[in-house]
Amino acid sequence: MRLSSRIDEIAYSPIRKLTPLADKAKERGVKVYHLNIGQPDIHTPECGLESLRRIDRKVLEYSPSDGFLSLRRRLSEYYSGCGMTYSPQEIVVTAGASEALMFLFLTCLDPGDEIITVEPTYANYLTFAQTAGVRIVPVESDIRRGFALPSPEEFESRITPRTRAVLICNPNNPSGSLYSREELSALVDMVRRRGLYLFADEVYREFVYDGAEFISAGHFPEAAENVVIVDSFSKRFSECGIRVGCIATRNAAVCAGMMKLCQARLSPPLLGQIVAEASFDAGREYVDSVIREYSARRDVLVDGLRSIPGVFVPKPMGAFYVIAEVPVDDAEKFCSWCLSDFEHEGATVMMAPASGFYVTPGLGRRQVRMAYVLNADDLRSALRVLSAAITAYRGIGPHAFCGMPQ
Amino acid sequence: MRLSSRIDEIAYSPIRKLTPLADKAKERGVKVYHLNIGQPDIHTPECGLESLRRIDRKVLEYSPSDGFLSLRRRLSEYYSGCGMTYSPQEIVVTAGASEALMFLFLTCLDPGDEIITVEPTYANYLTFAQTAGVRIVPVESDIRRGFALPSPEEFESRITPRTRAVLICNPNNPSGSLYSREELSALVDMVRRRGLYLFADEVYREFVYDGAEFISAGHFPEAAENVVIVDSFSKRFSECGIRVGCIATRNAAVCAGMMKLCQARLSPPLLGQIVAEASFDAGREYVDSVIREYSARRDVLVDGLRSIPGVFVPKPMGAFYVIAEVPVDDAEKFCSWCLSDFEHEGATVMMAPASGFYVTPGLGRRQVRMAYVLNADDLRSALRVLSAAITAYRGIGPHAFCGMPQ
Repeated sequence: MRLSSRIDEIAYSPIRKLTPLADKAKERGVKVYHLNIGQPDIHTPECGLESLRRIDRKVLEYSPSDGFLSLRRRLSEYYSGCGMTYSPQEIVVTAGASEALMFLFLTCLDPGDEIITVEPTYANYLTFAQTAGVRIVPVESDIRRGFALPSPEEFESRITPRTRAVLICNPNNPSGSLYSREELSALVDMVRRRGLYLFADEVYREFVYDGAEFISAGHFPEAAENVVIVDSFSKRFSECGIRVGCIATRNAAVCAGMMKLCQARLSPPLLGQIVAEASFDAGREYVDSVIREYSARRDVLVDGLRSIPGVFVPKPMGAFYVIAEVPVDDAEKFCSWCLSDFEHEGATVMMAPASGFYVTPGLGRRQVRMAYVLNADDLRSALRVLSAAITAYRGIGPHAFCGMPQ
Repeated sequence: MRLSSRIDEIAYSPIRKLTPLADKAKERGVKVYHLNIGQPDIHTPECGLESLRRIDRKVLEYSPSDGFLSLRRRLSEYYSGCGMTYSPQEIVVTAGASEALMFLFLTCLDPGDEIITVEPTYANYLTFAQTAGVRIVPVESDIRRGFALPSPEEFESRITPRTRAVLICNPNNPSGSLYSREELSALVDMVRRRGLYLFADEVYREFVYDGAEFISAGHFPEAAENVVIVDSFSKRFSECGIRVGCIATRNAAVCAGMMKLCQARLSPPLLGQIVAEASFDAGREYVDSVIREYSARRDVLVDGLRSIPGVFVPKPMGAFYVIAEVPVDDAEKFCSWCLSDFEHEGATVMMAPASGFYVTPGLGRRQVRMAYVLNADDLRSALRVLSAAITAYRGIGPHAFCGMPQ
């Protein structure tokens, strides 16, 4: 017996592959600042938690395969408030954005079909695509241009007879880039003209800083048939564990097709849906306070990184990630080394090498991705450690970097 | 833009496709007895519900991708009590058995590979297989033999160069059949000899009646590398909505491969895992009382069906389903007609036509599947309705059956 070829081809998560080294560092008594993962420390809204404490059901039953109507109604109202028009019937609730993406790829693309997306990219897109036998075709966004959305011409140059969709993540994970109305409008024109789906992963919709405007792919009614919004409660209400997300689209065929998969997996998580629906009661006040907190953390991290000689980092306008270029030969070796061979005042940092977020081999080799989900004090400490690590690493030369994690 | 060919090929769930007709019947004020779905009315254990009311987390975080270690430890102990040896590291927690099956197919089989399974079969196996590009090859089990497990020779005769796995469901959904030690032992010998995986869906493990012994595929240590157990909390503790299941296997490569998919979808449902772990505290007493209840319901249903002239039904020894042969020309037409054109004292019945559980066209044409998840009084009422429906249907002749639901 052997495993499938497709599973052999799937890489382990670039976010988590250094975990064994981090575990060993912790065993040695070293404190590890986790800049590698997007698990926020922000509290879940109390009204969401309270919905669990007040539960009076006798049976934790299946919910409808497309999610509770009451939740889809709340989502529909919420989208209205965001200037997006989706009726409850145009929303399908899923087990997180992860299931939404996986089902969407299976529903809209056949094996061998292609999706064009921006790199660096959310690494799990690649796994979902491999699962569906679908090819991800990258268009590079440039760190020197703040990871701006590539032009429609750049997307168009990647179109082949097998291209079926363009996938964007806005605000972007992993780069923190926020796309402008002009950029999106031009892309929307192109997907309409070429008859492509536009999958828009907008799970960080609220996480926009400095008063910038968020433009959704759902703001272009002329492309209603093309656009599928992918969404999640995970980040919005700091409830990643509830596993509730959705798709929203005016394309009725996509909803109907996806429902076949939703029926096969019976229902999305019941308890998560209860929490999600209740969390909306937290209102704009909760979201605003979260944005203020992240905005402050972003400033601490970006200012701190810019004060380290040789580090280049654009100021991200959305989400809670940055990608920084660091003055080392190979960021993957450097990130491993930080965990296995370095400590500063009893602590070290765990970062995600950015190469794992690029599809094209060789790109992002000197870049690291960091999530600013630690509080400002911890971020300052992590920055001191990182600064010391870069100095130490550059001092020892390339001979030290032969030991790689498997 | 079009949908994928694979999604076009997937059928809507045979359990739910008559739902629009049932909805219309309810709109007309007709009471519908739902014999079509496996949503039990049994109460979830109080200790499971209480774990939610006592929740003191501030952040509903991601859990580990393979599930909480504490839950995997409880599962490991539970399996020990069932005579099955799986360490916490040999268990991967999933979003229900549905995700477990989908990920297992993707992990172990490539597009074009084949799984041999018994028909009638759990219809969603077909969807999961189509999703993975995998072919389901059926071996028929016979209603006249009580849907006994087919012989190893029958399985073996279906083996081709693309065969990679045998899939069984024991106790069986949809037939209620329970497989004996001799039947399983012979099958295990064959899969070992032929180097195949044996996927054993045992989500109804506890639901065994008349003091019969449950034999698990995990009871054969000589086939430890071949066997993957698929499991779920849904039915055991009547908590279908929590979406928590798992695989358990001594085959470390399968766990490692599946972890790639688990990492991509980040984590199984956090809240469901909390409820699942707490539900184990309900102990044997809870399970025994549930078994007594189902056993009584089974007797009501089977005895009632056998009293209707022309109905043939084997007595199921496990799960909570029966497949009965009914004296009509076409059970799908009959089930539709019950909802659209019939009522008896203001009520009708919704059943699942069994043809949707067969892979081979034409099989099960006169069979219906029923779940005995209603209480005994409702079952008796449903039986009176069904008996009257059969009489009425046979009286009107075949000319009435031209209108089919889409």
